[in-house]
Amino acid sequence: MSLTALRQRIATVSDLLCTLNLIVWDSRTMMPAGGTQTRGNQIATLTRLARDTLAADQTFDLLAGAEEEAASLPPGDLAHEELRQIRHAVEVHRRVPAELVERRASVRAQANAAWIEARATDDFALFSPWLAETVRNTRDYADALGWSAHPYDAMIGLYEPGETVSSLTDLFGALRAGIAPVLEAALARPRPDTSFLTRAYPQPLQAEVGRTFAERFGYDFSRGRLDTTVHPFEISFTREDVRITTRYRENDIRPALFGVFHETGHGLYEQNVDPAFTRSVFASDLLGLYAVGGTSFGAHESQSRLWENHVGRSRRFCELNFGTLQATFPESLADVTPDAFYRGVTDVRRSLIRTEADELTYDVHIMLRVEFEAALMDGSIAVVDVPGAWREAMKRHLGLDVPNDREGALQDIHWSSGMIGSFCTYTIGNVMAAQLHATAMAEDAGVRDGVATGDYAPLAAWLRERVWRHGRSVPREEILRRATGRGLDPADYLAHLRTRYAGD
Amino acid sequence: MSLTALRQRIATVSDLLCTLNLIVWDSRTMMPAGGTQTRGNQIATLTRLARDTLAADQTFDLLAGAEEEAASLPPGDLAHEELRQIRHAVEVHRRVPAELVERRASVRAQANAAWIEARATDDFALFSPWLAETVRNTRDYADALGWSAHPYDAMIGLYEPGETVSSLTDLFGALRAGIAPVLEAALARPRPDTSFLTRAYPQPLQAEVGRTFAERFGYDFSRGRLDTTVHPFEISFTREDVRITTRYRENDIRPALFGVFHETGHGLYEQNVDPAFTRSVFASDLLGLYAVGGTSFGAHESQSRLWENHVGRSRRFCELNFGTLQATFPESLADVTPDAFYRGVTDVRRSLIRTEADELTYDVHIMLRVEFEAALMDGSIAVVDVPGAWREAMKRHLGLDVPNDREGALQDIHWSSGMIGSFCTYTIGNVMAAQLHATAMAEDAGVRDGVATGDYAPLAAWLRERVWRHGRSVPREEILRRATGRGLDPADYLAHLRTRYAGD
Repeated sequence: MSLTALRQRIATVSDLLCTLNLIVWDSRTMMPAGGTQTRGNQIATLTRLARDTLAADQTFDLLAGAEEEAASLPPGDLAHEELRQIRHAVEVHRRVPAELVERRASVRAQANAAWIEARATDDFALFSPWLAETVRNTRDYADALGWSAHPYDAMIGLYEPGETVSSLTDLFGALRAGIAPVLEAALARPRPDTSFLTRAYPQPLQAEVGRTFAERFGYDFSRGRLDTTVHPFEISFTREDVRITTRYRENDIRPALFGVFHETGHGLYEQNVDPAFTRSVFASDLLGLYAVGGTSFGAHESQSRLWENHVGRSRRFCELNFGTLQATFPESLADVTPDAFYRGVTDVRRSLIRTEADELTYDVHIMLRVEFEAALMDGSIAVVDVPGAWREAMKRHLGLDVPNDREGALQDIHWSSGMIGSFCTYTIGNVMAAQLHATAMAEDAGVRDGVATGDYAPLAAWLRERVWRHGRSVPREEILRRATGRGLDPADYLAHLRTRYAGD
Repeated sequence: MSLTALRQRIATVSDLLCTLNLIVWDSRTMMPAGGTQTRGNQIATLTRLARDTLAADQTFDLLAGAEEEAASLPPGDLAHEELRQIRHAVEVHRRVPAELVERRASVRAQANAAWIEARATDDFALFSPWLAETVRNTRDYADALGWSAHPYDAMIGLYEPGETVSSLTDLFGALRAGIAPVLEAALARPRPDTSFLTRAYPQPLQAEVGRTFAERFGYDFSRGRLDTTVHPFEISFTREDVRITTRYRENDIRPALFGVFHETGHGLYEQNVDPAFTRSVFASDLLGLYAVGGTSFGAHESQSRLWENHVGRSRRFCELNFGTLQATFPESLADVTPDAFYRGVTDVRRSLIRTEADELTYDVHIMLRVEFEAALMDGSIAVVDVPGAWREAMKRHLGLDVPNDREGALQDIHWSSGMIGSFCTYTIGNVMAAQLHATAMAEDAGVRDGVATGDYAPLAAWLRERVWRHGRSVPREEILRRATGRGLDPADYLAHLRTRYAGD
């Protein structure tokens, strides 16, 4: 009785979160410019209603009743995990004061405006008081959530449950040690020709070929769309309506092509969550208040990176699929070979901007940010010292001089959006992608044959069974343990990087 | 204090209704087919939350406090009308039992499926039990709303406050008497050539020219969009984001061209509601639970019909704007004159299908439906007798034989959607459009000069001042009285039809 009623309340929250996702999608793809402000009101109202419904005394009371009912269910029943997650979310939302929620939202709007101004004038000082305020509020938020070893742990836990400053320190140590020699070897190799990648690629044809590859990977367009946006993303409003977006440059084939591979990976995850989880906690991030089927941000990123890098950027993929590209863009690709294409899209160069970094150097950018966030959260670095420390770190890790803060500490939108704690999930996604891909290839001859011949259905089936269908009902480490026999482990990732970039 | 708090609750309801409009728009323009069912859950949840927020005891209590506060405000303060409308809506929603709301929603889904099946097999008997159930539920709903002279009055009042079976009987009598001789005269004239209207009109060019005309009428694309759909409509999510849709036939220029004129008229109304009414009762239909700025359905329709028929279908408009069409479609329109175009798009023919009817015969279809609905509501006709009575009525009013029910009593979606009471607003819109247009042309030389030279800004300014900006803050009859010196009056409409179709 209580369990049914509680599930109905969660279904209401889920409908609100799915609707929120839809109006966010619309804001970023369809909305005319004039709609910005009133749309903001609508987003704020729906977020508040979702939170209020979740944190209401009535939900809290139903929860206690539901737990009593569930006590008689067998230990393996998913209701136990379901109630654990609901209780965690309800308690967190009841614990965080409404005043702090409002303060964070209000600072976010102002900090974002200041960040835009600071970037335009390359003046970190304009952003600096807002970053300080954001750090203070984030610290208050972490305190409300609760933490033991490090305040940053509370924020990481929102995106990647189970990870901590301490666990990331170990992981990053291994990665830095492993990546450095690969980077050295890669940079020592002769640079490939990449000029053909920046020839003419008409947008409608890029969109068409993007759809073709998305379908080839198994993305179902009867339950999805591909649209155009400025900052690409994937978003879902239940598994039955999962939309991906990309951006096009008509003189560069890479952003849209690999962007679509990437978002398709996210989309496959969402489209293949168990239908029974629709409108339940297992398809909702009740802490962050949005509808999502992936068990963690890192797990989600692992699927996008797996299809982008392990499938789409592989030599075999280029050999098998370059013909499709050549037929679509005969004028720009007539004189290019599959091998030249592969070498072009696996070119390595050290760069200042994270979003333009290649596969090999990307994690260097991420690790740097995670360390800055941890230091800001525990006060071991002051906001005013960030730009200088950033220059120093870029010099140390990539040997690059940062000419200005716009290409340094002001480059990411995250901090101005109050989003602290999520960066680590990019690197966790890379590591997890390699681990899953290597296991699938090693243990399943069908997957191997498929990848060798351009049939990606066996790989998709392997991932559906072990990752996608579970939605948020199984934690990331448990997903990994069941699928690969161990928890998160950078060995496969480093092996992959060595093979691809150091010619092992 | 209470007034402020009450307004905040209404703002929350308004945000929910705007969001509902958005997800309805998405369902009909963007959503992949797979999303249908879970989208239905989302729509149901948001509708329920809007209704629950409105009907909550807390709202009811705030209302009493707000009324006390408002008592000290001057009599002209809009707060009085605002509170009157809120009280009316709150009381209605508290009066209608939740069980009846659910019953109507559930029957709607099943009746719609039965109607689709009945149409496909041309078997009214399949739909008949569901229509009977719909009529019963609608009667229960009318009883819950309350009525005195006729149960249908309660339903009409949801769409066109102030109108009743009795008032419509008078109006329809005058219209039938006025239209009959015009129709006779129109049918006696030689039929114009219409063959050029069904030549090749590529969709992208139709869309482009539609945008051009919408802008020429004053529609602001920085706060709007034009998209493709099956059943065209206009919808808004605040005045800052007002979207119109159309459908294209590549071998007929009429549906999209006049469809865009029509929806642009609706859109102009919404885009020009006083910004102060955003998120208030004056931009929300709290009874029907959706965001809308027009004071009644009829008033809204008057704006679409004014721009479609009095502007877009006029001889002067064709003379001034045919060049744009000819330049867009040179192959199909090179041998056509503005005069021939005008005569083609004002061709009159009796037809079986309402949605395909011309300007002159359209009201005949409407009046027939209104009379059927009234008779169903008071039991003077039984559901099983509808098809036969429909044949008899079409013979009597238009001299046509109805070959099957698909082209007869099964043609409209309205009854299967539980939508009873709205048909009259189409005809009221026609009458009101003519009344406003004639007044603007008679009293304002700037409007006349503009229309004569193709500058529609003066007409738009006249309508903005007298109609659009008031939103729902002034009732339809009061709008008409202030603008034209009298209430709804068919004289101008009949004069217009005589001039255009009987060559007066």
